[in-house]
Amino acid sequence: MSDKTDKARSIDLEIEELRAFTRPTSRVTSSALEDRLYKIFPVLDHGFVRVVDYMGDDTSIVQAARVSYGKGTKSVRNDEGLIRYLMRHRHSTPFEMCEIKFHIKLPIFVARQWIRHRTANVNEYSARYSMLDREFYIPAPEHLAAQSEVNNQGRGDVLRDEEANDVLEMLKADGARSYDRYETLLNERQDGRIINDDKQGLARELARMTLPLSAYTQWYWKVDLQNLIHFLSLRMDPHAQYEIRAFADVMYDMVRDWVPLTAKAFEDYRLNSFSLSGPMVSAVRRMVSGEKVTVENSGISAREWRELQAALGLSD
Amino acid sequence: MSDKTDKARSIDLEIEELRAFTRPTSRVTSSALEDRLYKIFPVLDHGFVRVVDYMGDDTSIVQAARVSYGKGTKSVRNDEGLIRYLMRHRHSTPFEMCEIKFHIKLPIFVARQWIRHRTANVNEYSARYSMLDREFYIPAPEHLAAQSEVNNQGRGDVLRDEEANDVLEMLKADGARSYDRYETLLNERQDGRIINDDKQGLARELARMTLPLSAYTQWYWKVDLQNLIHFLSLRMDPHAQYEIRAFADVMYDMVRDWVPLTAKAFEDYRLNSFSLSGPMVSAVRRMVSGEKVTVENSGISAREWRELQAALGLSD
Amino acid sequence: MSDKTDKARSIDLEIEELRAFTRPTSRVTSSALEDRLYKIFPVLDHGFVRVVDYMGDDTSIVQAARVSYGKGTKSVRNDEGLIRYLMRHRHSTPFEMCEIKFHIKLPIFVARQWIRHRTANVNEYSARYSMLDREFYIPAPEHLAAQSEVNNQGRGDVLRDEEANDVLEMLKADGARSYDRYETLLNERQDGRIINDDKQGLARELARMTLPLSAYTQWYWKVDLQNLIHFLSLRMDPHAQYEIRAFADVMYDMVRDWVPLTAKAFEDYRLNSFSLSGPMVSAVRRMVSGEKVTVENSGISAREWRELQAALGLSD
Amino acid sequence: MSDKTDKARSIDLEIEELRAFTRPTSRVTSSALEDRLYKIFPVLDHGFVRVVDYMGDDTSIVQAARVSYGKGTKSVRNDEGLIRYLMRHRHSTPFEMCEIKFHIKLPIFVARQWIRHRTANVNEYSARYSMLDREFYIPAPEHLAAQSEVNNQGRGDVLRDEEANDVLEMLKADGARSYDRYETLLNERQDGRIINDDKQGLARELARMTLPLSAYTQWYWKVDLQNLIHFLSLRMDPHAQYEIRAFADVMYDMVRDWVPLTAKAFEDYRLNSFSLSGPMVSAVRRMVSGEKVTVENSGISAREWRELQAALGLSD
Repeated sequence: MSDKTDKARSIDLEIEELRAFTRPTSRVTSSALEDRLYKIFPVLDHGFVRVVDYMGDDTSIVQAARVSYGKGTKSVRNDEGLIRYLMRHRHSTPFEMCEIKFHIKLPIFVARQWIRHRTANVNEYSARYSMLDREFYIPAPEHLAAQSEVNNQGRGDVLRDEEANDVLEMLKADGARSYDRYETLLNERQDGRIINDDKQGLARELARMTLPLSAYTQWYWKVDLQNLIHFLSLRMDPHAQYEIRAFADVMYDMVRDWVPLTAKAFEDYRLNSFSLSGPMVSAVRRMVSGEKVTVENSGISAREWRELQAALGLSD
Repeated sequence: MSDKTDKARSIDLEIEELRAFTRPTSRVTSSALEDRLYKIFPVLDHGFVRVVDYMGDDTSIVQAARVSYGKGTKSVRNDEGLIRYLMRHRHSTPFEMCEIKFHIKLPIFVARQWIRHRTANVNEYSARYSMLDREFYIPAPEHLAAQSEVNNQGRGDVLRDEEANDVLEMLKADGARSYDRYETLLNERQDGRIINDDKQGLARELARMTLPLSAYTQWYWKVDLQNLIHFLSLRMDPHAQYEIRAFADVMYDMVRDWVPLTAKAFEDYRLNSFSLSGPMVSAVRRMVSGEKVTVENSGISAREWRELQAALGLSD
Repeated sequence: MSDKTDKARSIDLEIEELRAFTRPTSRVTSSALEDRLYKIFPVLDHGFVRVVDYMGDDTSIVQAARVSYGKGTKSVRNDEGLIRYLMRHRHSTPFEMCEIKFHIKLPIFVARQWIRHRTANVNEYSARYSMLDREFYIPAPEHLAAQSEVNNQGRGDVLRDEEANDVLEMLKADGARSYDRYETLLNERQDGRIINDDKQGLARELARMTLPLSAYTQWYWKVDLQNLIHFLSLRMDPHAQYEIRAFADVMYDMVRDWVPLTAKAFEDYRLNSFSLSGPMVSAVRRMVSGEKVTVENSGISAREWRELQAALGLSD
Repeated sequence: MSDKTDKARSIDLEIEELRAFTRPTSRVTSSALEDRLYKIFPVLDHGFVRVVDYMGDDTSIVQAARVSYGKGTKSVRNDEGLIRYLMRHRHSTPFEMCEIKFHIKLPIFVARQWIRHRTANVNEYSARYSMLDREFYIPAPEHLAAQSEVNNQGRGDVLRDEEANDVLEMLKADGARSYDRYETLLNERQDGRIINDDKQGLARELARMTLPLSAYTQWYWKVDLQNLIHFLSLRMDPHAQYEIRAFADVMYDMVRDWVPLTAKAFEDYRLNSFSLSGPMVSAVRRMVSGEKVTVENSGISAREWRELQAALGLSD
């Protein structure tokens, strides 16, 4: 443990050094994001998100949309109007003019969902080149849920106490056991010591395959604001797996600091929006004209009808 | 002109030959699209769309979504249900499993809008390598419109007769004149004859720059169904410029033949859908509960309020 | 086991059915690839590659490069010349006009390398939705290698007998053990039986995280020929990890059947090519003029000098 | 003209203001690039390149390749070694971790070549929304070349005096004439004055199509360093059209200031490199072993043989 603490302490020092060293720039800066720069924001039990660099702010979106020489418009109010217009009409290219770079530590099964977002730049820690750390994701008890009965790819009720305890014990034991096995295969401890001088040790690129999907990896992930917003709209959604949502939520806090006008427009036109299908538009037209619409006479499937009811605050 | 006819006739022959020659395949086929294959479907005055190749159909989407060994589900009804579910929940990757390849002839100013859709494959006719044809887009009188007074990037009323006539005459004269100039600069006629033996002729890559944006170019354009749908949703929109809409409409006819279940889902969940912003959701909730909502007490801007009224069939 | 055999048998039937059912098409076909269509080509111990669909062949590249109405040129010889020219001068867009779709079963650690190639379409089997199979990659003894002493991210000598045996035993035991644990967490057997009626079972999206990176997953992977060639040039390279190379090699066999002219050009201009850096060009110039060039007077680093020596068949 | 000067003067003021206003940042900065920030660097007769924003520098590449908490390695020498290694082995993802944003003014025919590079972000000045300027590209006499006799898509000798003069006169007259026509169609002068109160004026989205491809447009173009390098390697090539090369050259000056270690590696391993095909490798092996190799016994086509001779400084 003292070894771990040494490493953590040295990381803290590196971060403090980076934060302390400032230089003048004529580039657009976000003071709220500067304040978060390089800092570790914990997610789950061993994960984190750090902003390592960024380019642009709300005014950069306006500047690009207008292809102007100077900054955006002269007034924040005009900037906001234009940003809302762009968001509402899905004019996506101006939002691509802001860029952000994160350093993220995350469980491998989360990384596998994350990487499906292709329009981003990634450099992942190489387990062919280096040994991974002894860290595995163990959910907090309140996130240990049973398979959902209604949603084939989601969670239902939280596990009852005894079963939850058993599961936690198993996951902890499995993590420890698989890391021991990883060291044995490599014939090397995490601190670099050789275990058995008579053995050769399996290549790192092979030994890693004994590690579970709960092991942590890390990467640099750089993305433009448009694609980040798209990522967030999918991964902050209640249907997204909790573990990736936990990362998305922390990242969204940073987005709100960085580009507050864009964040507000995103909330109004994406996050809190509801898309009426063609048949739903017809049904709502009839509702607002005073007609009594039921699932039977609505032309809408039962499942979508429930969603519409929920969105409009109607009871069955 | 007889030369032009010869060329057109030889193209017709090539197309008939391609259509006549069939081979057996175990791949998924769409008989409705086979029927259109290679044929020229005219768009605008000199443009066209041809389907040159395609991969997959509605069942391919289901097959990929399920990662199955055989075809989709056993029933069209189940296939349709899954396709609608995927479209509604924006599960976009299964729709990427169908691919289509077009040969398109289009005015350069339309090509410049089109190419902004980056996730597609393109091979354009090279005006560095070959001479362009003597063809320029001249709008039909009913499409000669004045600048819109309400929409800064759209058209308003159709031009009145006399002005329309003047405009048409100017456009025709300009096309002819600029093509004459193009030949003079190249020192070569369209049919390959040298104009003046004492001249060198300007390089093709330079001479082309005298041609107007109304000149026609052609390209092969290959795209997956997901990105095609996205293209169509933007370019079939009433706010899209008429000239690109004309192409999108013809292409959508082909999509409907090719993947009818996907096309129906696209119409219900995209084309005829209406997205309620967060504030609009609140307003509609109040409306359906019987409350009288006005633009003043709605929390919605005047512009968006008009859109909502229009969508719900309400008068002011 | 009989259950497994039943499943395999039913897959075989589905594949035979798809292969047997042919329809006429006017599209370009590749008879050599038709012959492979849908068939399972084994890779590693439980993996495979199947071609599920394809679009185009060598003539499609020529057709797109020339933006022609009919097929490519009239002669195979001209087609070949143009394809070689395009490959040599890195005119990549015509190669994007061919497309192929694979169904692949592969270990998760291989899938993680693979997915880094972003310009492709993917649908992966969902372990949130379904249970994974009891299959884990166990290397053949000849691939159980020690960490390389010279290459930080590669393998060195094959493990000696006793250590190899130990490693194999461990990997087998770990696979079995982790799958047992997976079933226990889910409270469900692979065949769907509930283990303990008093337990709820952990959600699939969580239980999967106990599985090791050697577990198999499957996906549909669709890619254009240009990006496939790029993938192959990186993954058939001797520095690529053996396990992904095994897949690339099998896929390249299919490419050779499908687009033989392109494959030959790829071999000459990519696979068997050697890139001389600026300083290497100077050194080789001096060599061919008869000068004695040594690492000391070459201006090339020791490492690159060794590579140059190897490429030119020179001894130290 | 005084109006034009007023506009130019106001742009200069805006730029000076942006340059003068500095803020402290903890982000990585490049002082050499800060010095160029926002400034207009002229290209061709009316075009320019300006750097509007950037992210990262050479150390950012190292930092991402190592997925480290702090900066790159502790020494510039180590940074350089790693950057050269990454460039040589085409490990492209770390170079994607730097980003740069340009504001560019360029002729439309150049813009059409440029936009073929799809992995970049673009916002172009909208001629649907605003009027374009009265500016057309007129080549300098030394760039007015005849069609090449050996290269079907390139230039040959410079035009002789008299023909060159004629061509220049035609291009100038055409530009002026087409802009007059543009104003007539719009029924509006560049300064906003209405020409004829009785006319409606054609919509901007239509009137623009009478402008020639030599007209200037502008855009914001944002790209990562990896894709910028790829763009430059293709567009600084002698086979690229002169007009786009002129832009690439100016942009490369900026890259050299920004990431000097990467620029040096790019020159050695890309710009000044020569790729030996498989057959060329065999021929050079024989040459350096003292054998007399001729085009006849080389197994190399005549065209490629000439290229090899040129690269190795051999005469025929």
